[in-house]
Amino acid sequence: MARLGETRPSPFRSREERDLERIEKREAVLKAAVEMFNARGFHATSLDDLAASLGISKPTIYHYLGNKDQVLLECLTRGLMQLRAAAEEAQTLPGTGLDRLRAFLRSYADVNMRDFGKSVIRTGEEALAPESAERLREMKREIDAALRNLVRAGIEDKSIAAGDVTMIAFTLAGALNWPGRWYNPAKGRSISDVAEAMVDILTAGLAPR
Amino acid sequence: MARLGETRPSPFRSREERDLERIEKREAVLKAAVEMFNARGFHATSLDDLAASLGISKPTIYHYLGNKDQVLLECLTRGLMQLRAAAEEAQTLPGTGLDRLRAFLRSYADVNMRDFGKSVIRTGEEALAPESAERLREMKREIDAALRNLVRAGIEDKSIAAGDVTMIAFTLAGALNWPGRWYNPAKGRSISDVAEAMVDILTAGLAPR
Repeated sequence: MARLGETRPSPFRSREERDLERIEKREAVLKAAVEMFNARGFHATSLDDLAASLGISKPTIYHYLGNKDQVLLECLTRGLMQLRAAAEEAQTLPGTGLDRLRAFLRSYADVNMRDFGKSVIRTGEEALAPESAERLREMKREIDAALRNLVRAGIEDKSIAAGDVTMIAFTLAGALNWPGRWYNPAKGRSISDVAEAMVDILTAGLAPR
Repeated sequence: MARLGETRPSPFRSREERDLERIEKREAVLKAAVEMFNARGFHATSLDDLAASLGISKPTIYHYLGNKDQVLLECLTRGLMQLRAAAEEAQTLPGTGLDRLRAFLRSYADVNMRDFGKSVIRTGEEALAPESAERLREMKREIDAALRNLVRAGIEDKSIAAGDVTMIAFTLAGALNWPGRWYNPAKGRSISDVAEAMVDILTAGLAPR
């Protein structure tokens, strides 16, 4: 029998270990959730299926993430935060406006082909409470504005030919949203390959002739 | 009292009149349905709401169109038929491969900004029975193949610079699918203006330099 004062590790975890474990479990549940939403569609996914796929109980999901709408809100928020971070990073890069735009577009396409970005593309906001939907729309507006600013900066430094900034931004964003619907890593092309190829096609006509 | 043999119009409609009226009513219900699906989302729309908006009963909707999934199938099939017709028409036009591609892309964008095209973009196939979903996917494959053929013809007649045909086609289609999500006729820009501007932006870089 173990006696007090022995050096074998304590069977009780420290506060830090418990926090870390909680975060890891929460992330694992969220990852499984976003993958299932993306594969089956949000409406066709039940938390019962999700719990079964993880071998846990539904109350465990509630404990870590809340109800199904709250899980979706977290997925969409993360996707949009990744896009916003990409926009902020691109603005700090050296080079012409077109260079910075291309860097942002590559990251934008990249995010859209990964789990949380895919969920932004695949799942509408209809399931969410109006205030949550409005918060997400505000993030989308920020990302759209950042994209327009990059196009405008390129026109100003003459790396991009003059044109309708709003229409150019919508066209670029739309093209790079779409891989969130069709990209399938099993088909052999890497995310960065697809992002690079699409951005080359889209920006080939932007420079002044 | 009216007597046999008088020339006043019969209160009974002819077979033809009844057929015509049936078609008109069916179209009116379908149009209201696709508008409501597009505005609220398919899952958030109930046939009760649809019936109420038309001042008719739910059994009347069943009579004309069937259940909610059957209504959706008809909306999506019509959208895809319009896209397929646009592809077939473009293939018969004179001009270079790039000219024909541009004509198709304008029609493709146009369809996507109208009711049935919008429903293809906005509503996934998850709600449909597997055989219906497969039939729609087959139509999408035909449209994708037609788009790739137009790009390939342009590369062959040298109106389009050599490149990855599949990636070019996906990029163009994606960009022109997206207005189905954001286009709002109330914002003042006509569908044909938007289609033209987007196609100009997208095809500016396709010609050989």
